[in-house]
Amino acid sequence: MLPYKNLIQIDRTHATAIYLQIVEAFTKLIQQGKLSAGTKLPGSRALGSLLEVHRNTITVAYEELSAQGWVEVVPQKGVFVHQKIPILKGQELAGKDEQKSTKVGYAIGTSTFVEAAAPVVASYLRFDDGAPDVRLAPLKALGRAYRSIIQRPSFRRGLGYGPTLGGLELRKELVQHLQATRGLSLDLYNLLISRGSIMGIYMVAKALIKPKDLVVVGKLNYNTANMIFQEQGANLAYIDVDEEGIVIEQLEILCQQQQIRAIYVASHHHHPTTVTLSADRRLKLLDLAEQYHFAIIEDDYDYDFHYQRNPILPLASIDQWRHVIYIGSVSKVIAPAFRVGFVAAHPDLIQEMGVLRRIIDRQGDFPLEKAIAELFQTGEIQRHIRKSLRIYHQRRDRLDDLLQTYLADVVHYEKPNGGMAIWTVFDASIDLQASAQKALKKGLFFSSGESYTANIPSLKATLLGFASMTVDELEEAVLMLKKSIVLI
Amino acid sequence: MLPYKNLIQIDRTHATAIYLQIVEAFTKLIQQGKLSAGTKLPGSRALGSLLEVHRNTITVAYEELSAQGWVEVVPQKGVFVHQKIPILKGQELAGKDEQKSTKVGYAIGTSTFVEAAAPVVASYLRFDDGAPDVRLAPLKALGRAYRSIIQRPSFRRGLGYGPTLGGLELRKELVQHLQATRGLSLDLYNLLISRGSIMGIYMVAKALIKPKDLVVVGKLNYNTANMIFQEQGANLAYIDVDEEGIVIEQLEILCQQQQIRAIYVASHHHHPTTVTLSADRRLKLLDLAEQYHFAIIEDDYDYDFHYQRNPILPLASIDQWRHVIYIGSVSKVIAPAFRVGFVAAHPDLIQEMGVLRRIIDRQGDFPLEKAIAELFQTGEIQRHIRKSLRIYHQRRDRLDDLLQTYLADVVHYEKPNGGMAIWTVFDASIDLQASAQKALKKGLFFSSGESYTANIPSLKATLLGFASMTVDELEEAVLMLKKSIVLI
Repeated sequence: MLPYKNLIQIDRTHATAIYLQIVEAFTKLIQQGKLSAGTKLPGSRALGSLLEVHRNTITVAYEELSAQGWVEVVPQKGVFVHQKIPILKGQELAGKDEQKSTKVGYAIGTSTFVEAAAPVVASYLRFDDGAPDVRLAPLKALGRAYRSIIQRPSFRRGLGYGPTLGGLELRKELVQHLQATRGLSLDLYNLLISRGSIMGIYMVAKALIKPKDLVVVGKLNYNTANMIFQEQGANLAYIDVDEEGIVIEQLEILCQQQQIRAIYVASHHHHPTTVTLSADRRLKLLDLAEQYHFAIIEDDYDYDFHYQRNPILPLASIDQWRHVIYIGSVSKVIAPAFRVGFVAAHPDLIQEMGVLRRIIDRQGDFPLEKAIAELFQTGEIQRHIRKSLRIYHQRRDRLDDLLQTYLADVVHYEKPNGGMAIWTVFDASIDLQASAQKALKKGLFFSSGESYTANIPSLKATLLGFASMTVDELEEAVLMLKKSIVLI
Repeated sequence: MLPYKNLIQIDRTHATAIYLQIVEAFTKLIQQGKLSAGTKLPGSRALGSLLEVHRNTITVAYEELSAQGWVEVVPQKGVFVHQKIPILKGQELAGKDEQKSTKVGYAIGTSTFVEAAAPVVASYLRFDDGAPDVRLAPLKALGRAYRSIIQRPSFRRGLGYGPTLGGLELRKELVQHLQATRGLSLDLYNLLISRGSIMGIYMVAKALIKPKDLVVVGKLNYNTANMIFQEQGANLAYIDVDEEGIVIEQLEILCQQQQIRAIYVASHHHHPTTVTLSADRRLKLLDLAEQYHFAIIEDDYDYDFHYQRNPILPLASIDQWRHVIYIGSVSKVIAPAFRVGFVAAHPDLIQEMGVLRRIIDRQGDFPLEKAIAELFQTGEIQRHIRKSLRIYHQRRDRLDDLLQTYLADVVHYEKPNGGMAIWTVFDASIDLQASAQKALKKGLFFSSGESYTANIPSLKATLLGFASMTVDELEEAVLMLKKSIVLI
């Protein structure tokens, strides 16, 4: 490795932002030929600690270098000096940079817990972590409804300020939908419309968690939820996840030792492992909640997609809002960009979240909420769910077949009974990072899984989303994956 | 007043949520005839302290009673038993209530600082606090663009996950628009798209303020901003606002005594007084920021609407992002329901906000942002601003004429040089609450101003928004206001 600490000198008294100083230093090193095409740059943590700046600053500097065309970001593998260095474009941009940045004259905090979201890398094919196929989404109907609604004189009040809990029409439709599909017993008072399930978790955390509160999560868990709880001041306690879900015995021992504020579970499909929490553990969990007065944050992000005749109903369907806070998303049904989700919970919590919402984004997106409500009313969403379910079922089976046919010797997985991704564990002989990098060069993105396995680094595993690719695309993708396998 | 403490007995061990117990108690009192039609119910603070529950719980109970038709909410005046008591509807709902609510089994915090947003009351005419006329908004063009965008195969990536700073197209358009209209020198790195200016302030506070930090605000100030800073843990220091804006001498004295983290100013039109910060105070403010290392949060929510030939440029146009954090909104240009705003600031702060955004709502609304970007590209927004400006200018002049003609003896105001509302101070002889209540019965809503004047309770003043009514509607509204004046 080059002596970056000497080559990149950061002047903290200088007018230019630190990340731009890093960008400029790298630009110079590349132009001078000290860093040649294809050279791997150090990881953001390593370089951050070398230069004594936060890793997010390095991440942002690398993104900027990538946007300017100096480097290529290869997910999970690293950042490399671009094969074709665009001297002219770089010089233009370098010229622009100079005028830009004075030194900041006030103190800015840095979040200890939140890591910058990974940039989405364009590729020909993509194993995502379980996203819907937006090509199937009812976009014509949604576009038509949205356009009609905002032009309707009768909707004029919906264009102004309104209730912080969300549009009444969508709340009514969701009450019905959740009753019909999940056996929940709820009323309008139990429901708040959020902007996707992330804001749902965020608002629950804000209303529920005080600094130093203990929140229990799986030893593998949805990373973003962990960050939200920690950012809100919680201490996390990790318990194991086995083939029946979170290990409740460990939770009970914890409860005997400390006051627990909440546990976060995805009982239908744990993220990332996709295991379903078994029936007896569900009852035991509710029992412990009653005994030790904690909340159960049930993230049921993909309940609508299950491939068995009788899916296990959510915890929320048993509990009657005494302990369970139920979070779901419409984004997984239509497309991630339409950020509409919901929280169903005890009216006291919903009320407090409605008060807090005023200072976060004031209110939801009434025109979009109304448009989605109309798609529920006409049955468009329900038909879309049924159609997607059938198609995703085929795609799950196809990916299962393909993995058995082409990769049985190197992967291990349980075929999930629902959801949109297969949690795939790779053989110890595989270099998953090198394989992901090789695949990306061929045009296939898949995550090498570090963000999922951070708490069990020895595990080589990743999510292979199957819902967003056709069966033909899945075949092409698995063949590309097979050809990309790199042994250690 | 009835002995509410005896009549409304709250059982904290009971399964029913407290606010629903209050709803049920009032329902019973009304049905039994103990509370007759037109009776005024106690204020939320008073009843809250009587029953030892948070005032927000009372507010929510009253909203519920209002939704069920038992009471009428008359803004700033109070809550009254409805003239027509809907027995049947009430009984139906009461029956539904019983099945609903178990007692919550976990602890819920209550925000000390955030008050529930006031419900929007329907009325024939309405003096809002300065909102645009949504009837003028380019809804046809926006609807057409939105529909076309979400159906466009080339936009498919825009339907998935993307950059936390906002859609690139709108950021590019806003860079140009802010350069052209406000003399700001900025680049893409300086800009984050938020969901309206409220989320802009929220995210700035989250990235900037640590518990116990001192934030300076006007003695009259935008209430929501105060709540955001306090909720984030800030201590507020209040300084006076006179006809030249915030009194900088008081700020200097504060700076000599304590470390200040930030000051919040709306330099173009202070909220609620609409005064413009004078040129020498602006320079002095920037000077103090340099000397004492604090941030200036410049909320320029209605810059696009100024009726003078040469408006004073924002503080941000002088400072080059060393101290100023500039917040604006597209919602004020189109309609409040389209919650799109922005924060322009030093790249270090924007970077940190982009990291934090991941856990709040993950990302903005790419389809809507793209649609607005296209309306900027075609010049539709710019034409709409010019058109609205001309119309709002006429409406401001008309409201000025009308107030002079009909209410000159009881109101005092400075004609604002921009914005969408006149800050109107009423004579001490006027009972502003009673007048607002009387006006609402005639079909005119106006605020009796307590939320604006909370820190100077002796002041009788309110905002009369003129932008959302036609000149004929303004005339009708002022005549209704005149007829509603109640003397003490």
